[in-house]
Amino acid sequence: MQFDEQHLKGMDPRQRVNLVNSLSGFKSANLLATRSATGQENVSIVSSCFHLGADPALMGMIIRPHSVDRHSLEYLQETGVYTLNQVHKDIVAQAHQTSARYPREVSEFDATGLTPEYLADFAAPFVLEAHIKLGMAVAEVQELAINGTVLVIGEIRFVTLPAGVMADDGYVDIEAAGTVALSGLDSYHRTQREGRWQYAKPDKAPATY
Amino acid sequence: MQFDEQHLKGMDPRQRVNLVNSLSGFKSANLLATRSATGQENVSIVSSCFHLGADPALMGMIIRPHSVDRHSLEYLQETGVYTLNQVHKDIVAQAHQTSARYPREVSEFDATGLTPEYLADFAAPFVLEAHIKLGMAVAEVQELAINGTVLVIGEIRFVTLPAGVMADDGYVDIEAAGTVALSGLDSYHRTQREGRWQYAKPDKAPATY
Repeated sequence: MQFDEQHLKGMDPRQRVNLVNSLSGFKSANLLATRSATGQENVSIVSSCFHLGADPALMGMIIRPHSVDRHSLEYLQETGVYTLNQVHKDIVAQAHQTSARYPREVSEFDATGLTPEYLADFAAPFVLEAHIKLGMAVAEVQELAINGTVLVIGEIRFVTLPAGVMADDGYVDIEAAGTVALSGLDSYHRTQREGRWQYAKPDKAPATY
Repeated sequence: MQFDEQHLKGMDPRQRVNLVNSLSGFKSANLLATRSATGQENVSIVSSCFHLGADPALMGMIIRPHSVDRHSLEYLQETGVYTLNQVHKDIVAQAHQTSARYPREVSEFDATGLTPEYLADFAAPFVLEAHIKLGMAVAEVQELAINGTVLVIGEIRFVTLPAGVMADDGYVDIEAAGTVALSGLDSYHRTQREGRWQYAKPDKAPATY
């Protein structure tokens, strides 16, 4: 089937949201955790984290300022730090539940049964139950004029990995760590590696390791 | 294991690239296809497409202007259009091979065995072999000062889907369409749905459909 932008514009809004959220392909699933200057903790699932650069080690994410992400955005701007914690198969229910619109005074840690964990000298909480965790420093916050969403760019300050998942060449086997992929707004997927492919060169046929 | 930014900075550059590319979680895999004003075709795999908004239907992607993506960036700016074609299990080898650094005059379509396909009134080629394809109009191109990468924002103009993959609520079963997920720079994964979760509410326990 094929349709154009006129059809998209004419769709039921809820249907369009589900459709358009499916069209970018699989998404990352991360728990964004923050703490306000006054100590209020927040944790919220984000599906828009993306790699931005390795040196400096930068990651981007898109926040909707009028959604349940609004408190996270406020707190990471207040304190300059946040954490990203990859969602794995055993915490999907809790991770998805953080997307409920809790009032400000409720910590989603308490509400969903996740546990805040602190590193010395880092103001934002990590998610104890996660396996792969990043401590991030805010590098830039930019409102995108085109639709009012906010691009947050952060620099990686701390990395926590389970033993044995990092290969000699630096690749992390996130599948072995149980990390899930998202599609659309609400579908969670386990993965099965088909292969790692060798660095591609014009005069070489594609091959896996 | 745990390490900090000093350790990251001290790593072998190739190792750091593999590591940091793994830390955002699973990535989408799309073929970005373009045609220059003079008719030169280009196709290049991108792992950084992300959802930006449903109304208008916007998608973002990050391009490295000094990488193999340089020609794509030039052509989409020249013509104002490009296409995104989800990579599925049967075209992974060809898709990965598009990341080789071919000279400008070589079309990656020819070099990798993929086939350009044109819709009436749309200047950029689609990838015939893909199942889920988007015709995109450039909405904004912005260099990110922090590291010189380029954020391209596009609006969805045309959507092509296989029969039967869109649910009544608009969700597209990209797993059924064979779409793969990426991790790191070179690892391709099939997926297995664990479940779709109901819209989360504070007073409701998390549940799948």
